[in-house]
Order: sequence, then structure tokens, then C-alpha cells
Amino acid sequence: MIAVLRWGHRIPRDSRITTHVALTARAFGADAIYVDAEDRALEETVNSVKDRFGGNFEIRTGINWKKLIREWKGIRVHLTMYGEHIDNALPEIPKENVLIIVGAEKVPKEFYELADFNVALGNQPHSEVAALAVFLDRLLDGKGLGREFHGGAVRIIPNPRGKTVEELE
Amino acid sequence: MIAVLRWGHRIPRDSRITTHVALTARAFGADAIYVDAEDRALEETVNSVKDRFGGNFEIRTGINWKKLIREWKGIRVHLTMYGEHIDNALPEIPKENVLIIVGAEKVPKEFYELADFNVALGNQPHSEVAALAVFLDRLLDGKGLGREFHGGAVRIIPNPRGKTVEELE
Repeated sequence: MIAVLRWGHRIPRDSRITTHVALTARAFGADAIYVDAEDRALEETVNSVKDRFGGNFEIRTGINWKKLIREWKGIRVHLTMYGEHIDNALPEIPKENVLIIVGAEKVPKEFYELADFNVALGNQPHSEVAALAVFLDRLLDGKGLGREFHGGAVRIIPNPRGKTVEELE
Repeated sequence: MIAVLRWGHRIPRDSRITTHVALTARAFGADAIYVDAEDRALEETVNSVKDRFGGNFEIRTGINWKKLIREWKGIRVHLTMYGEHIDNALPEIPKENVLIIVGAEKVPKEFYELADFNVALGNQPHSEVAALAVFLDRLLDGKGLGREFHGGAVRIIPNPRGKTVEELE
């Protein structure tokens, strides 16, 4: 089980970025995303992608994040530009039951204490979407992107020169 | 030289996502970003990050994208969910003088023809920020994130339990 906690989600300011975070979590091998603020529109967007493209990805919004972090049975990894460089941190991180915490610009200080690992995808400012994508890609040894998504309405067939979309229903 | 072309930038709709694209390009090892629409605010945001955190990253907006793509002396890689899977495409892609094209939701058909490679970071919908980050990380064998940024006002020292910011000026 690999899950993502998106903390600090504000509507409508973060709607688009959090959608990117959620779809990135799904596409790169996470099983679920939990979002602190309740956001039915976000749930609908993500669930409609799941209906169309398949797989078992779960989204829940309106989450008690403190309870989730405290009661998580596994490893908690907080992605932050201030943390330990991924190159040094990754070998220490178990690959099962990982909760990946992705915050907004300023997170509470207690995140740094509650997390088992504070990990930086380089110590430069960039994007929580980028951080999550590369963390998942490296955590899963590049295999997250190779996962099959079953049960969708369509499937995209890789094409070096155009678009091939197979209708399954 | 590794550069990114951001196509289809609309103000203000894409301001935040394109900022993430630009900062991701910088942090993960690209040398420059070119944006089709003119956007002085975006230039200022990216240049202020460069002033504060260092390095030689270049941003130019208001670019004639057709001319740029046609006259690029090197390889043109278009990132798209419809393309060839990265696992198959990457071994064929040279690692020097690469122009990475990152589009908005719908790109002109000619992109698929103008590009030397149409590459998918998995054939699922997610995010151009995620696609760019993982493409750069894999293209540069994970070394893009290890690059040093000189000449900034501050430097972040990796810290597994908090924030350490060194003032250099």
C-alpha cells in the first residue's frame, strides 16, 4: 500500500495543482490519495479518470490528517526541499506501506517530527507534483509506470507518431 | 544544452502550472525554458528564484515556437501520454542538445510530426509537470538533481529534521 496525503489544499486556489498531484499519484504507482480539505469536485475529476482509464485508485477528501499520520501503520515520508537529499535517503526507506506527505507552501513544524523521513528531491524550489512523481518513480524502481490499469472504458496504445485510443466498452 | 518549450501557455489560467513547469525544468537539470506566450510576471518569478538560489537557468517568453522547433540543432522530444513508452524510447534518445516540448491539453497535430520522438511517461493522464520531472531525471540518469547552483543569495543545507538555510550574501 502506497498512499499520498495532500495537506493544505485550498479551494479554488489549489484545485488544479491538487488534481495534478492526484493524477500523478495514480499514474506513478500509488494506490490512494487523501486530501485534508473536503472537495467533491476533485473527487469527481479523479474518479472520472479512473472510470475512463481503469485501475483501483482511491481518493478521499475531508481527511483528519493528524489522525491519519499518527495511526499510519508503516513509514511516513514527508517531501520537502529542506529535507535529506533523495540520493542519500532512498536506500533507508522501506518500500511497503508508505504514506507520502505532500504539503503546500508552508507546513506546520510538527510535520518534520511526525515524519519518519523528510526527503528533498534536490534542495531547490520546484513543484510538489514533480517531487511526488520522481519520488514514486525512484521508490518503485521505475516500475510504477509499467503498471497495468484494468477495467477502464478506453486504453491508449503507445504510438510514436500520433494518437491511438482503443475503446473497450 | 537541454531546453524546454512550453506550448499553449494561457494567462492567467496556466500561470501557476507553467511556473511549476519552469521551476521543475531548472531544478531537474534543464538549462532553459521557452514559453510561447509573452508573460513578464512569469519571467520575474523564475528570475527571482534564480537570484535567490543561484545557477544559470534562462527563461524566455513570447517565443515563435514553430521557428524554434524547426531550427533546433539537436533532438526534439515531445512528451505526450499518447507516445511511445519511456522505457522503450529512452535508450534511443541522445542526451545532448535536447529540446523537450511540453504542451497544454490539446496540441496541434504537427507536433507529432515535427518531433523526433513522441514519448509517454506511461500512457495514463497525469501532469506535464510530472512528465517533465521524470523525463529529465531519467534522461540525466538521476544526476540532474545532483547539480550545484552557484551565485545565489541562499543555500539550503539538507536536514532530516527541519530547515537549514545558509545566507550567502
